[in-house]
Amino acid sequence: MAVDYQSLAVKGVQALSPYQPGKPIEELARELGLKPAEIIKLASNENPLGPSEKALAAAREALSEMCLYPDGNGFDLKQALSERFGVGMDQITLGNGSNDVLEVIARCFADRDSEVVFSQYAFAVYPLVTQAIGAKGVSVPAKDWGHDLDAMADAVTERTRLVFVANPNNPTGTVHTADAIEGFLAKIPEDVLVVLDEAYCEYLTGTEYPDGLELLERFPNLIVCRTFSKAWGLAALRVGYSISSPAIADILNRVRQPFNVDTVALAAATAVLGDEDYLNRSREVNTEGLKQLADGFDRMGLPYIPSAGNFIAVEVGKQALAIYHALLEHGVIVRPIAGYGMPEHLRVSVGLAKENERFLDALAEALSAAGEGG
Amino acid sequence: MAVDYQSLAVKGVQALSPYQPGKPIEELARELGLKPAEIIKLASNENPLGPSEKALAAAREALSEMCLYPDGNGFDLKQALSERFGVGMDQITLGNGSNDVLEVIARCFADRDSEVVFSQYAFAVYPLVTQAIGAKGVSVPAKDWGHDLDAMADAVTERTRLVFVANPNNPTGTVHTADAIEGFLAKIPEDVLVVLDEAYCEYLTGTEYPDGLELLERFPNLIVCRTFSKAWGLAALRVGYSISSPAIADILNRVRQPFNVDTVALAAATAVLGDEDYLNRSREVNTEGLKQLADGFDRMGLPYIPSAGNFIAVEVGKQALAIYHALLEHGVIVRPIAGYGMPEHLRVSVGLAKENERFLDALAEALSAAGEGG
Repeated sequence: MAVDYQSLAVKGVQALSPYQPGKPIEELARELGLKPAEIIKLASNENPLGPSEKALAAAREALSEMCLYPDGNGFDLKQALSERFGVGMDQITLGNGSNDVLEVIARCFADRDSEVVFSQYAFAVYPLVTQAIGAKGVSVPAKDWGHDLDAMADAVTERTRLVFVANPNNPTGTVHTADAIEGFLAKIPEDVLVVLDEAYCEYLTGTEYPDGLELLERFPNLIVCRTFSKAWGLAALRVGYSISSPAIADILNRVRQPFNVDTVALAAATAVLGDEDYLNRSREVNTEGLKQLADGFDRMGLPYIPSAGNFIAVEVGKQALAIYHALLEHGVIVRPIAGYGMPEHLRVSVGLAKENERFLDALAEALSAAGEGG
Repeated sequence: MAVDYQSLAVKGVQALSPYQPGKPIEELARELGLKPAEIIKLASNENPLGPSEKALAAAREALSEMCLYPDGNGFDLKQALSERFGVGMDQITLGNGSNDVLEVIARCFADRDSEVVFSQYAFAVYPLVTQAIGAKGVSVPAKDWGHDLDAMADAVTERTRLVFVANPNNPTGTVHTADAIEGFLAKIPEDVLVVLDEAYCEYLTGTEYPDGLELLERFPNLIVCRTFSKAWGLAALRVGYSISSPAIADILNRVRQPFNVDTVALAAATAVLGDEDYLNRSREVNTEGLKQLADGFDRMGLPYIPSAGNFIAVEVGKQALAIYHALLEHGVIVRPIAGYGMPEHLRVSVGLAKENERFLDALAEALSAAGEGG
């Protein structure tokens, strides 16, 4: 009798559906017979500026080392992060994107006896990594599309090992002030770890928002996660990191794969930290683009969730999936977020001005066609 | 009272010591005040040829996509692997090096109730990934430094979920014939998965050795793992893969991080598969270098384990660690393998002819100094 190999997987994994990434440009090009250059992708919260010249130069140079294993300790990058943020190198854990760091944290501190708390409409990787290790995910209903921090604190039980908080949150773009985050942290027992995911923090422009790193001394149970995939423009290369107490970093570094960040990625990330101009331009283009998209939605009478990230969730109604497909036909890739329990929204990443314009035009056409069709 | 965060880690992780990689050239240069170019590293089984020109060109071109997420499905690379090996794209799981694939396999199919069987002196990642998930590792005593396949089959119990077999094995270089591997597979129950780690298979030069891919149809519980880090020369970029039944690959792809292989790595790996000349030269340089090293050891009267890999374990006696350090002083990095339970051996990767010669000269000096000192 043939063995059912899927039934041999551990329970958490059997029930797992993989993460659904944004549709790659090449894939759509293959499907529609379009040229990749004719397609714009506003689906994965990528930096529309194109690469930092400094990152590019460093990456190019690093290619000569192609045959050698990466520096498993990531010395240069940790040193650069340490200098930039005034933290010890022993507080840093590098990851293959922050996805990797989030997964390593879950694997280190939770198992099938644990509960892991996160918010409804929060980043999909939190429930996925929880499920993969067989822990119980506790999804706390959102408030105004954002984290209900009081309810999340109340959801902590004796079995809770981890709480994931995204600030700003993806895919909703909601954000909490420093006061709110500190008040929340003060309520969490010291033996429950709080992961503050600041993947989009570089886009924040107000003084009322927290810098997680400033909270580390007061809250030793805090782990701050960040990424080079967004404002720093290195999504292709996969570099994220966490900053925590040295004791926690020591644990994370035991489970982290020894060469989880590759040589080119290490070089590019180290170099881009010295490209302040790139970061500033990333921020400016994003602030302008968010306004351009919001203005466009206002003109069309479409509700949207005000966003602190580099994307915006717009409510297009029950035909969201049809509109997504109509946009694909126009060569515009955005992100349906029904998988996040938001079937009437689409998430649009902020592009360059002309990309935003092309998206808004295509959306207007798609809405009008959907209106006629429906 | 301060919380001991290390005590909050899951049990397997608490007992974990991280993988010890070969010493990076930059690190030794910092420590000894040497120039990196003065140092040779024969410590990590890297390809001494330097990058394939085809891989380099593809990687350079891919850098322009730095801001965009990788293709999470790895379409082009899977297609190239599928064509090369005559397997379905749905049989392939890509990993951030084969380390990643090995870890994903363990996390998918074993947990703290499981036993995982591997050989004494086998690749360190097998016990590490077993420990990290809290499973029980069963290390089967080696025979003549290689896997005792009969004893490994006998070690399988009702709790065994996985058996790791490395062929050739690292760090010993031992290898089994096709007959031996097939005889072994025939003895393993169908509901126990066998991971045949063929990281070094491209260096095999005899017809008596197995090609794991040819065994997949007969043994549906088989997973073959391979890597681009050795003969294909892409260690810096982290690309490995497994080939299995589609049912098993489907499970592995659920747990695999969606962007575990980055854009540059995907491009370089796809391109290098078309560089047959590079692979052939890798093999030739290795065959000649293995002979050069063995001849050198013979001249010095040093026992060594005949190797089918791109490295060789040489027995230098109780002073192995002192000799390792003496070699470092000469700017030559090799690998102490006391962590593998082989405290009297050093593992030396095959370099270019002049690197092998420099190592042999340095070793002769170190031995002579050790003899005088002891």
